[in-house]
This record gives sequence, structure tokens and C-alpha cells, in this order.
Amino acid sequence: MQLSEGVEWGAHCAVVLAMLPDGAALPAGRLAEYHGVPGPYLAKSLQALMRAGIVASSPGRRGGYRLARPASAISLLDVVDAIEGERAFFRCTEIRRRGPAAVAGRANSPACHIAAAMWRAEERWREELAAVNVEEIARVVAEGVPPVARAKAEAWLSEVLASRG
Amino acid sequence: MQLSEGVEWGAHCAVVLAMLPDGAALPAGRLAEYHGVPGPYLAKSLQALMRAGIVASSPGRRGGYRLARPASAISLLDVVDAIEGERAFFRCTEIRRRGPAAVAGRANSPACHIAAAMWRAEERWREELAAVNVEEIARVVAEGVPPVARAKAEAWLSEVLASRG
Repeated sequence: MQLSEGVEWGAHCAVVLAMLPDGAALPAGRLAEYHGVPGPYLAKSLQALMRAGIVASSPGRRGGYRLARPASAISLLDVVDAIEGERAFFRCTEIRRRGPAAVAGRANSPACHIAAAMWRAEERWREELAAVNVEEIARVVAEGVPPVARAKAEAWLSEVLASRG
Repeated sequence: MQLSEGVEWGAHCAVVLAMLPDGAALPAGRLAEYHGVPGPYLAKSLQALMRAGIVASSPGRRGGYRLARPASAISLLDVVDAIEGERAFFRCTEIRRRGPAAVAGRANSPACHIAAAMWRAEERWREELAAVNVEEIARVVAEGVPPVARAKAEAWLSEVLASRG
């Protein structure tokens, strides 16, 4: 069981958008270029983030994607749920209600103990991801980034924003 | 992202095997019958549990699957890892090292903050599943099972074990 690559891409895009100057936006193609990932696939991830209200897009020469709400109000869980959907990892098909020992549904205890444990573990996973927000990630990334990488990123961004007028 | 059905089947099989009388074993076909699931698919899950040292099988008329170690020493995480493999949910492809701001690997901070948060969440999930063992599940199931289901299960098992001589 693995998360799709779109989760990694979406999270990195959200962090980059959190670092943009006020009023700036980046089109999907530029975000793909920055991350070295395939544009058409990244576009799908960005559309999923848009449907979830994490990013917004504007048309025109200076248009593109920006965060739709403050970075502090976007958790890593929001990004994961936007890309993956909110389906539970564990799907209980109630196999205890099949076979020779099956009884009518109402006679069973409310939740299978196996399913309950699986869902409890999932809840721990979600809680941990809900506790991390994009603003915090952007701050740690900004603090930890090597000076040479920061300089390259800033040069690239200046050039991109200047070229858009 | 979803766990395969084999996780549910494998966990239920482990719980049933934990409830067998001493020395008894059940063949894959009987476990499939008990759970109302397709035999050939369940056989694959059982083989995965065997490779992981969770169940063992013996040949012959009274042979079949049994637990390979005490139920208290088999966690729900052991079952999940056996069926799903131990791959992390989140695969970090180090996209921060691509694109126009990329710098040589050694210049980067040890772990991307996004990956670190994803892996921390996964660790919480694993901890929770590691804390639940098959003996405990079997005990809760035995306590909570409706009397009519228990009677049906016991009748089925007696008949199966008797038919095997």
C-alpha cells in the first residue's frame, strides 16, 4: 500500500506557493519545472488541490496557482486527503457475517474488533498529519535550505515573476 | 490508498486459528469456507502468512494451517506486514533535488521535512497496530460473539475436525 506520487508533488507545491510574495501566482508548467516533475501529471494533482479548496487559480498573463487559504490553515492531512480521497485504508467487508457461523446483522457486536483496531491506527496516522501545517513546513524548509539552493530558487523565481510582467 | 482484502482475511484466519483446540489444524479450503471468501485468493494470503512465520502448515489427512507461534506473539502489524510487505506508504523521491534550485545531495538537510512528517505519521499507525495481538482479538471476539453464532461456529468446527478423523 503506497500513497501516490501526487501526494509528494502536491505537498511540495503547497510549500512553494506558501513562499511566494504576496499577490504572486505560478502556473502549473512553472511548478512542474521547479520540481522537475511531468507537467500533465502535476496538473492533475493541482486540480485535486483546487477541488479541495487548498489552491486557487486565476487566468491571464500573471495568473496561475496560489494558496486559497492561509498556509497555517492547510494541514498535510488536507493535502493527502485532496490527492488520495478520504477512503479508509482498511475496508471491513464484514466477513464475520458470512460462512457457516454467520448470524443476522443485528445480532453482531457493533464493530468487528479487527476493524476497530485498524481504524484506530488510521486515526493516529491522520492525527499526526493533521498536526503539521504548510506554513510550519515552509518555515522549516526555509531555515534548513542550503544557501546555494536558496539563491538558485530565488533567482529562478525572480526571473519567472519578472518574465510575467 | 487501501489495504488489500488479504489483510482482512489474514487477520480473521489468524484469529480463528488462535481459537482452535490444541494440536488441531485447518486446511485453506476450510478456512475459506468458514469465512465465505474465495479459496484460491485466501490460499495466497495464507502463504504470505506462512512466509512471515505467522502460520505453519502440515501435510496429511489431519494437516492444514495452525499458528506458528503463540497468538500473543502475533501482532496485527505482523499480519499487515506479511500481506502488504513493509514498504512505507510514503515514498520520497527527493524532488527537492531536482529542478532549477537543486544542489548536490550532501548540501541538503538530512531529511525533507515533508517526508519526515509523513514517516512520523506512519510510525504512529504502526505503533498502534503493533500494540494489538491476535490473542487479545480472539478473546474480545469470543466474549462479544452472539451465542447463536458461537454455537454455529462450534458445531461447524466439531463436524470439520470429526470428519478429519
